[in-house]
Amino acid sequence: MPNKNSDSARKRSYAFLGPAGTFTELAVKQINQAKGASLISVNHVSEAIDLVVSGKVSRAVVPVENSIEGGVSATLDALAGTELIRIYGEYLVPVTFNLVAKPGTKLSNVKTVATHPVAYAQSRKWLLEKLPGHVHLPTTSTASAAKDLLESSYADAAIAAPSIINHFKLTTLAKNIGENKQAQTRFIQIGLAGDLSKPTGADKTSVIVELPTDRPGSLLEMLEQFATRGVNLTRIESRPIGDRLGRYRFNIDAEGHVLDESVGEALAGLHRFSPKVSFLGSYPRADKQQTAPSGNNSNGQYGEAKKWLDAIRKAR
Amino acid sequence: MPNKNSDSARKRSYAFLGPAGTFTELAVKQINQAKGASLISVNHVSEAIDLVVSGKVSRAVVPVENSIEGGVSATLDALAGTELIRIYGEYLVPVTFNLVAKPGTKLSNVKTVATHPVAYAQSRKWLLEKLPGHVHLPTTSTASAAKDLLESSYADAAIAAPSIINHFKLTTLAKNIGENKQAQTRFIQIGLAGDLSKPTGADKTSVIVELPTDRPGSLLEMLEQFATRGVNLTRIESRPIGDRLGRYRFNIDAEGHVLDESVGEALAGLHRFSPKVSFLGSYPRADKQQTAPSGNNSNGQYGEAKKWLDAIRKAR
Amino acid sequence: MPNKNSDSARKRSYAFLGPAGTFTELAVKQINQAKGASLISVNHVSEAIDLVVSGKVSRAVVPVENSIEGGVSATLDALAGTELIRIYGEYLVPVTFNLVAKPGTKLSNVKTVATHPVAYAQSRKWLLEKLPGHVHLPTTSTASAAKDLLESSYADAAIAAPSIINHFKLTTLAKNIGENKQAQTRFIQIGLAGDLSKPTGADKTSVIVELPTDRPGSLLEMLEQFATRGVNLTRIESRPIGDRLGRYRFNIDAEGHVLDESVGEALAGLHRFSPKVSFLGSYPRADKQQTAPSGNNSNGQYGEAKKWLDAIRKAR
Amino acid sequence: MPNKNSDSARKRSYAFLGPAGTFTELAVKQINQAKGASLISVNHVSEAIDLVVSGKVSRAVVPVENSIEGGVSATLDALAGTELIRIYGEYLVPVTFNLVAKPGTKLSNVKTVATHPVAYAQSRKWLLEKLPGHVHLPTTSTASAAKDLLESSYADAAIAAPSIINHFKLTTLAKNIGENKQAQTRFIQIGLAGDLSKPTGADKTSVIVELPTDRPGSLLEMLEQFATRGVNLTRIESRPIGDRLGRYRFNIDAEGHVLDESVGEALAGLHRFSPKVSFLGSYPRADKQQTAPSGNNSNGQYGEAKKWLDAIRKAR
Repeated sequence: MPNKNSDSARKRSYAFLGPAGTFTELAVKQINQAKGASLISVNHVSEAIDLVVSGKVSRAVVPVENSIEGGVSATLDALAGTELIRIYGEYLVPVTFNLVAKPGTKLSNVKTVATHPVAYAQSRKWLLEKLPGHVHLPTTSTASAAKDLLESSYADAAIAAPSIINHFKLTTLAKNIGENKQAQTRFIQIGLAGDLSKPTGADKTSVIVELPTDRPGSLLEMLEQFATRGVNLTRIESRPIGDRLGRYRFNIDAEGHVLDESVGEALAGLHRFSPKVSFLGSYPRADKQQTAPSGNNSNGQYGEAKKWLDAIRKAR
Repeated sequence: MPNKNSDSARKRSYAFLGPAGTFTELAVKQINQAKGASLISVNHVSEAIDLVVSGKVSRAVVPVENSIEGGVSATLDALAGTELIRIYGEYLVPVTFNLVAKPGTKLSNVKTVATHPVAYAQSRKWLLEKLPGHVHLPTTSTASAAKDLLESSYADAAIAAPSIINHFKLTTLAKNIGENKQAQTRFIQIGLAGDLSKPTGADKTSVIVELPTDRPGSLLEMLEQFATRGVNLTRIESRPIGDRLGRYRFNIDAEGHVLDESVGEALAGLHRFSPKVSFLGSYPRADKQQTAPSGNNSNGQYGEAKKWLDAIRKAR
Repeated sequence: MPNKNSDSARKRSYAFLGPAGTFTELAVKQINQAKGASLISVNHVSEAIDLVVSGKVSRAVVPVENSIEGGVSATLDALAGTELIRIYGEYLVPVTFNLVAKPGTKLSNVKTVATHPVAYAQSRKWLLEKLPGHVHLPTTSTASAAKDLLESSYADAAIAAPSIINHFKLTTLAKNIGENKQAQTRFIQIGLAGDLSKPTGADKTSVIVELPTDRPGSLLEMLEQFATRGVNLTRIESRPIGDRLGRYRFNIDAEGHVLDESVGEALAGLHRFSPKVSFLGSYPRADKQQTAPSGNNSNGQYGEAKKWLDAIRKAR
Repeated sequence: MPNKNSDSARKRSYAFLGPAGTFTELAVKQINQAKGASLISVNHVSEAIDLVVSGKVSRAVVPVENSIEGGVSATLDALAGTELIRIYGEYLVPVTFNLVAKPGTKLSNVKTVATHPVAYAQSRKWLLEKLPGHVHLPTTSTASAAKDLLESSYADAAIAAPSIINHFKLTTLAKNIGENKQAQTRFIQIGLAGDLSKPTGADKTSVIVELPTDRPGSLLEMLEQFATRGVNLTRIESRPIGDRLGRYRFNIDAEGHVLDESVGEALAGLHRFSPKVSFLGSYPRADKQQTAPSGNNSNGQYGEAKKWLDAIRKAR
């Protein structure tokens, strides 16, 4: 069956946190436009972003938040470091961990387990019970832990996504060993700032806002910029600005699209309030939950209020 | 000395709460454009407003607030009853009460004292001490109490403004008998809705806002429409909507001019929030205190935020 | 039928805004404990309060709010003027106005109409239609207007409560001439500060709060003292403090009883926040609507939070 | 010079993120009572906490926040996982990174660099410039990276604290290679829940608060629990609750001590508001900045408000 996106896809390229077999690759597979595109595996979020900024890839897919480990600092900080990129989509990937090893390995012989620290933290309970004397060898990704089993590693087993055995000649020793069976990771698709995504009625808008430091209560004031316009937040996460302790910026996901009047006015309010605010993008929600502003905060109500105000102001 | 406003003033006419000698007349005398204009004395605020609405007078001057007695209900309710009028100015008049009588009257012979209930309340302490057995005869104004002494009244004395003796052949029996020596009344100049007053940098904006009744906390929400835009209120006064107990509208005076971005956005916010909001006018403050929005809420900051938002939105 | 309250009632006395036939007397009749008590008619709210403060009467019944005219300034200011009194109950009286006259009077002959200014304002529309050339004679109460018809007045008719004809030999010329047919007045029962009314689960708490004047946004802060504890307001009304324009105190009715933890904490918060706060009383609501705090703000939740905090604090 | 804490210190033991030479050990050295105590090196925050909970050590010292990398998830999550522990102190350690190697190693020969991912991120810019083709080998601490150089590692150099050369026979190849020269890490001292630290007038109080999920705006409501009592926050950091995306708890540091009335009332308010709130401790600030509540929120003002309320409530 010919892919209708195939022509444009051929010209498209997607950087992702590799190697093949990572959870990030599973996120890329959810993207329709990525079918048939070339996939570029990188080792670090900042590499992925650099490739986007320099125009060497069309898009990058990176993890932004995990339901257990929280925000991915590398991604949040990379987003804060440039004004040139935008978020164009988000994707949810269930996080399931299997213990894999070279064919012939027995569970009872496993002494050293390689994996990414996050995967290790989630599997630690199972490991303490089943492999009480094990040693952890940290790696930069779950897939590289698996790959290294066949190459350079002195580890006996690796913790990785179930699909890893499609990529490497490995055996599964134990399935679903993570503590939380509903764990998910949220990934975002990043590209150069360009066309706005079209509003779908089920959108999210992401911004980074620095708090003014000269007065207490400024977080409350910032949240009121949203509340007064009836804009709900789905996530708020603090990150250090980095110059000294006690100074924070906030990564915020809000319901709605920047073309919605309520969201636009809230963002303009943030711009006045904050020493620095970065617009990261408006894009369709992964869960497709409707979030178009309604009631007092609908575009219709904004339009009527504007008409009313304009009539008053024009009386001169 | 020829009055430079005289030509246009000749065509102008001002209704005021009369008769001659009332505090309202003192307010009219503060208005430059009223010099040489014809002054129409009326008995009731609603008469004054009716004359404006019907075009029979150019302007009306009515009391809106007294530092002791509070808001003047008749004025507040008249303002709420029509969308056709606007406030064009405010004037402060010190309120001093004298006891006056027909020439020859002695204080010791005064048994019945005529005056408006508000003047009576403010003079009651003095009267109880000096004229313990007196009877109060309520009248519709202090000036009519004085005027009636010479005509129809069976009162022995009247309480009125000091200047009343310029209008009627009366003697002053006691000066400054009001309890509060700093008492002031605030008057407003009302005209048909027309040209906006030009911003002066020291302006007030008045609105009437009905609260939605379907949820608690709506007054707080309404105030946040101002606070989020940094607009300060100088007065807020509740009045019953009138259909049943427990439903209120609020008369609000805010600092700034409707042409200020912060004030305009707050008003548009009220329009979305409230089942009914009436714009009463933007006009120069009597105390000339500067109130142009500044800092995060200056027109400059609004302009920059708008430019920033427009650039984001145009990216499509 | 013997009244079970008769013995104690005999010793009880109630001051009310008289004379007999006023709406205030109708409020007194709603009070069980007032049955058989002696009723003392007074002309002014401050007289009624003075009688309570001096111990000459047990209680006073005065109007506090009208669904059309709003707050009764004399009552609100009298409440603010002393710390010695409390509100012990509230009563709603429908306000219906009839036009009455001496027997034999014809409507077509009525030229002068006596009544209280509030009653006049509510009947003005009817009068302008039916008696276009009439003159208004203001009186201190509707009942005194009626009474004076038989005594001193030169008025031809009076506007008063329908029940006025039970007290004076008068005829009804027109019924229910008020503009708003659902008009109500709320009355309160005032006594010396003494025992708290027992909580009924359907209570109101009244306070007077002065706003600090040194900063904008203080009204918002004051309302947050209630909102943070989940206490709803049923009424908020500003009154001038009286020393100069721009300084206000607020008369507030809140849902719940001062013995409720949420209400108590809100009041203590006001005490810290405000330069002056007066507790006027907790008393059963006239409409018997349940208002006991619930959910997060129930007394049970407050108790558990206190227990939790005490355990933390005792760890030393 | 004999240490006056030596006797009790002998019985004391401190677990810290080791091995010797980590930044955590530098934090331990700031603690007076730790002088002469036995220091137990552990590999993981959760091990340190487990030793405290089981009573095997008196205290543990762990990093909680870095000025560049942000909150230390392992610590934040360990604190959320038990009610048995408290924070007893905080310590600031400047974070400076040196590149170290076995004696004889030349910078030009370094191909593989071992260090903790956080140290790597902060040194990456320097490494890309000076060692463009290097490979990163992640380790569980900077000190273990250094230690491993002499033992098991195939790395050529390690990034660690300057003081690392006091512990291992290593040479410094480059000094202060971190990107941010003012970087700091904040450490906390953890013990079993027991005696409260005495208020010093310069204290912090730490709590973890889960947000109710059933309504938008709950973060704003939570912050108002602090704001209404005038309690300032110095840090707020979200962490996932872990069961699914979109559910957060907040780690909060507030100014003041739980024995301060304002802080206590705010905490009790959180207890009512939140499905789960954990008190982590009140302890002296590392920066010794005075934070005792003052003005309207001082203990004196709280005391007066309570006295006033009690007097009202006792009237029965």
